[in-house]
Amino acid sequence: MAAEKLTNDRQKQASGWFRSLRDDICAEFERIETEFGPSPGRFERKNWDRPGENNKNGGGGEMSLMRGNVFEKVGVNISEVWGTFSEEFRTQIPGAAENGGQFWAAGISLVAHMQSPLVPAVHMNTRMIATSKRWFGGGADLTPMIPNEQDARDFHAALEACCDRHNPGYYKQYKEWADKYFFLPHRNEPRGAGGIFYDNLDSGNWDADFAFTQDVGRTFLDIYPKLVRRNMKSPWTEEQREAQLVKRGRYVEFNLLYDRGTTFGLKTGGNTEAILMSLPPTVKW
Amino acid sequence: MAAEKLTNDRQKQASGWFRSLRDDICAEFERIETEFGPSPGRFERKNWDRPGENNKNGGGGEMSLMRGNVFEKVGVNISEVWGTFSEEFRTQIPGAAENGGQFWAAGISLVAHMQSPLVPAVHMNTRMIATSKRWFGGGADLTPMIPNEQDARDFHAALEACCDRHNPGYYKQYKEWADKYFFLPHRNEPRGAGGIFYDNLDSGNWDADFAFTQDVGRTFLDIYPKLVRRNMKSPWTEEQREAQLVKRGRYVEFNLLYDRGTTFGLKTGGNTEAILMSLPPTVKW
Repeated sequence: MAAEKLTNDRQKQASGWFRSLRDDICAEFERIETEFGPSPGRFERKNWDRPGENNKNGGGGEMSLMRGNVFEKVGVNISEVWGTFSEEFRTQIPGAAENGGQFWAAGISLVAHMQSPLVPAVHMNTRMIATSKRWFGGGADLTPMIPNEQDARDFHAALEACCDRHNPGYYKQYKEWADKYFFLPHRNEPRGAGGIFYDNLDSGNWDADFAFTQDVGRTFLDIYPKLVRRNMKSPWTEEQREAQLVKRGRYVEFNLLYDRGTTFGLKTGGNTEAILMSLPPTVKW
Repeated sequence: MAAEKLTNDRQKQASGWFRSLRDDICAEFERIETEFGPSPGRFERKNWDRPGENNKNGGGGEMSLMRGNVFEKVGVNISEVWGTFSEEFRTQIPGAAENGGQFWAAGISLVAHMQSPLVPAVHMNTRMIATSKRWFGGGADLTPMIPNEQDARDFHAALEACCDRHNPGYYKQYKEWADKYFFLPHRNEPRGAGGIFYDNLDSGNWDADFAFTQDVGRTFLDIYPKLVRRNMKSPWTEEQREAQLVKRGRYVEFNLLYDRGTTFGLKTGGNTEAILMSLPPTVKW
């Protein structure tokens, strides 16, 4: 059977959530730009379609990109795609070998690089994937450009409270996963201050797993703007800006050498512009 | 038998050549800086040692880095290393399974990123590797920031003449290899204007193969400074500088996503600073 959109109510719910979260995040980030001063940045929207082969694959995404006065470059992408995995990938994806490789996936992905070296960069991504199994994955992690213990502590506290609302074991497990994942072996250094990372989440209760994934998004939307507003108007030095540009190089190294979504996406014909929206606006080595 | 330096006369010759080529290139690039104007850039030298494990591995390298007025960032590295490949790598390297994984390798590697967007970036690398077999590899390729047919034509003509002095089949074969290798599938674009790329060169006549490898180095040393001097004082526009910074992003993408030396080196405990000396000084996405 050729794969089709296969959307059921739960997939519609998840996809709708990613879209409404995207709307809320973009609106909040634009409010921050407006608060900051004149000529505020605004998001520009661009849609892309996934090239279908013989109607076997479809879907696409919406990229929202803003180059503003607070947000030097922030991309917020949502996507919903479906189709049939190649024979090769079927063995690598849970549940894909059992249904002829059919899949559906939707998610939101965000990376923000800030003008001020005193405001941390941030990444947030959540997604739902369905094959013959279905699960959620995602997370959020903070990358201060100049070490900032208060920001890191508040970010983690918010994620911990979020996790604790759903399962007392989540925070410890997902924080450790982030620490392990967001690490550059060739530099022997972490990408930033960490956060949480989770994948293959299928507790047997879809509603609960969806509620957790929604809460991760809401928690991000609550805590990150606080960190931005806290320091966005503080003056910084040239040395701090230089340190930021060099630190961003580590972000590039991580994304192109190790990040599974980036390397997997680029090597399997994903949308290059959407995938590489995560790269920083200006970098030094 | 534990591997040792295993240096024989031919290895000494090759290693000595890479060092003297390094000296000549650095001297020529410093002359260009002096010709250009006041406060000329100068190379800074830094040595590194390869961490040995139980005396099984050894060697190291010398990094020469200049941040000047013509050369925004240029790294010229030489290295000579020896030891024993892990069981895993033995099967991937010609002749390594047959001698218990012992190897010796020496080479020179150079990447130059220029201040002027009118002067192409360049890469040159040659090396000799010995296991139970021995061979040469390397090449040179040009990356104009703004398309420049004259530079590309002259660079290729020099390499073609070099190849033709040694074997009438080399240029066609090695140019095609470079075109295939220096390509970004996710952008569907070449890294630059190409050049030559060769590997596993063992014609059965070591002296001839060494002579060719020396000629590649001398040819580079002759042609690239001509391209630099041709345009280094020409005025450029802000738009051209922007195009240069964006084009450099493609260079980063290639090196971190695809370049075998970079990804292999970083993932197998190579010297990170030497390997990533190839990354451009300032980049925009």
